[in-house]
Amino acid sequence: MKWSMIATWRMALEGVRSGTRILREHGNIHQAVVNAVTEVEDDENFQSVGYGGLPNRNGEVELDAAYMNGDTLDAGGIMAVQNIKNPIQVAYTLSKYKRNCFLAGTGAMKFAQEHHFIMQDMLAPSARKRYEEMKVNLEEMVQQEAYQGHDTVCVIGRDDNGSMACGVSTSGLFLKQPGRVGDSPIIGSGFYVDSEIGGAAATGVGEDIMKGCLAFSIVEKLKLGTEVQRACEEVLNHHEENMMKRNGSVGSMSVIAMDKNGHVGAATNLDIFPFSVGDADGNCQVLVAIHENGKIKILES
Amino acid sequence: MKWSMIATWRMALEGVRSGTRILREHGNIHQAVVNAVTEVEDDENFQSVGYGGLPNRNGEVELDAAYMNGDTLDAGGIMAVQNIKNPIQVAYTLSKYKRNCFLAGTGAMKFAQEHHFIMQDMLAPSARKRYEEMKVNLEEMVQQEAYQGHDTVCVIGRDDNGSMACGVSTSGLFLKQPGRVGDSPIIGSGFYVDSEIGGAAATGVGEDIMKGCLAFSIVEKLKLGTEVQRACEEVLNHHEENMMKRNGSVGSMSVIAMDKNGHVGAATNLDIFPFSVGDADGNCQVLVAIHENGKIKILES
Repeated sequence: MKWSMIATWRMALEGVRSGTRILREHGNIHQAVVNAVTEVEDDENFQSVGYGGLPNRNGEVELDAAYMNGDTLDAGGIMAVQNIKNPIQVAYTLSKYKRNCFLAGTGAMKFAQEHHFIMQDMLAPSARKRYEEMKVNLEEMVQQEAYQGHDTVCVIGRDDNGSMACGVSTSGLFLKQPGRVGDSPIIGSGFYVDSEIGGAAATGVGEDIMKGCLAFSIVEKLKLGTEVQRACEEVLNHHEENMMKRNGSVGSMSVIAMDKNGHVGAATNLDIFPFSVGDADGNCQVLVAIHENGKIKILES
Repeated sequence: MKWSMIATWRMALEGVRSGTRILREHGNIHQAVVNAVTEVEDDENFQSVGYGGLPNRNGEVELDAAYMNGDTLDAGGIMAVQNIKNPIQVAYTLSKYKRNCFLAGTGAMKFAQEHHFIMQDMLAPSARKRYEEMKVNLEEMVQQEAYQGHDTVCVIGRDDNGSMACGVSTSGLFLKQPGRVGDSPIIGSGFYVDSEIGGAAATGVGEDIMKGCLAFSIVEKLKLGTEVQRACEEVLNHHEENMMKRNGSVGSMSVIAMDKNGHVGAATNLDIFPFSVGDADGNCQVLVAIHENGKIKILES
């Protein structure tokens, strides 16, 4: 089965729907991917991306996003930014530059302002309420590292001409240290795409994902001819085993990938990892990756 | 020939000397690598690292640094920070955490202050003078992207027990956009080390280095059994050809690597790329990588 778009989590389904619609209407791959991520950013119900994202320890919503063009390998991203309505749109704009493509903190925010991106308070009332409830036990939670809500949205798309692109956006770990940068805006760890090979992206505990450069590792496997589902499983399993051997523990990690022909794969060390897909005819659905007999099985949701 | 330490550029020679001395006196690999990078950061004469580093467009010295432990794969880094005397020491401290290991901007600076790292104005009089001279033609320079001084210090070390580590530090591109993050603090692009395989690091135009995840790519080659010098050349040549094909241009890029046995390699797309090495007996010297008949030749300086 060939798909035009794959995205992490169930929350991306509507984004995938609008992204594949753009492709069907002959919009370009960049419009489609940016639009898909934007939809997730704009939905207050998603507590880990854009508006509605849960705040850091100081009660501030800090966002990361990145974009990569699979034809040119051009990439851009922003890290640890506040008050930017759609980080993915800034990341996409930066990906068109040849230099100064990744910007962090106040420099990134200033760039967004100067380029007239919409600035707004990103702490939704629902997220503020959640923070206020948790704040009572803030120290305890931070000590326990009982972080929740690190569900990055990652979208990989491919148009009929074989051009691929990838966009990611996240508010990172709930109650994170201010300034914390996870894997999402880090090329090779949170995302990587090459139209001549395929693309991959990751969601989960960024610090552990980064140690294995998971997205780039999967694309390297695809390059060697490994089938896309197997590439996801081999990379994730190897890294999990490696982390257990080196450190005795590993955080949650899930990956998605699409090869240059539109075949997709996914793997996870969670019990269940839902992800969204859409095809050229506009058929969009949620699939789930689950463990069965030591292998990952992909089921319809 | 086996080495205990390899580092980018001639400027790292004294750092390598002090790092290998620490190893000889049975200090640990982390002390040795952090110390080697610290020496370069502290020397005002080096215009691209630490004190004396050239400022961004606003005349501010913004620094990036990262550290990786090859035994555990733990890594930490700071990006786009100001006023931190020794970024490498903050990065090393962050690498010991399990979460919130990479910090950007004001969050990173706050962490450094709270952990009592030395804070100071990092704009040396010599760097200010250079900036003032250039400022006259600032717009023109930025338009031309005529950046200079992107010579990151990268140090890879290995102790007698086979433990490896890597540290990098830079002030990034001269006249960069405020907030700009290059490849240096990006795991897999600017640095990567695994004591069971080897380590690699990169210096040059970060935006182009990142597109190929050069450090991780080299370590992947080592893992497959490729000899270290060949691994450096194959990865750099492939990426250069790929970038020329996709974009028609590529910035300067140089890489160093050390395998798990202490053999080293280097490659560059510059005419000449000097790098520093030191062995367990304290013999330290500068070697140069140059092009000869389509191959890289390593010569004594």
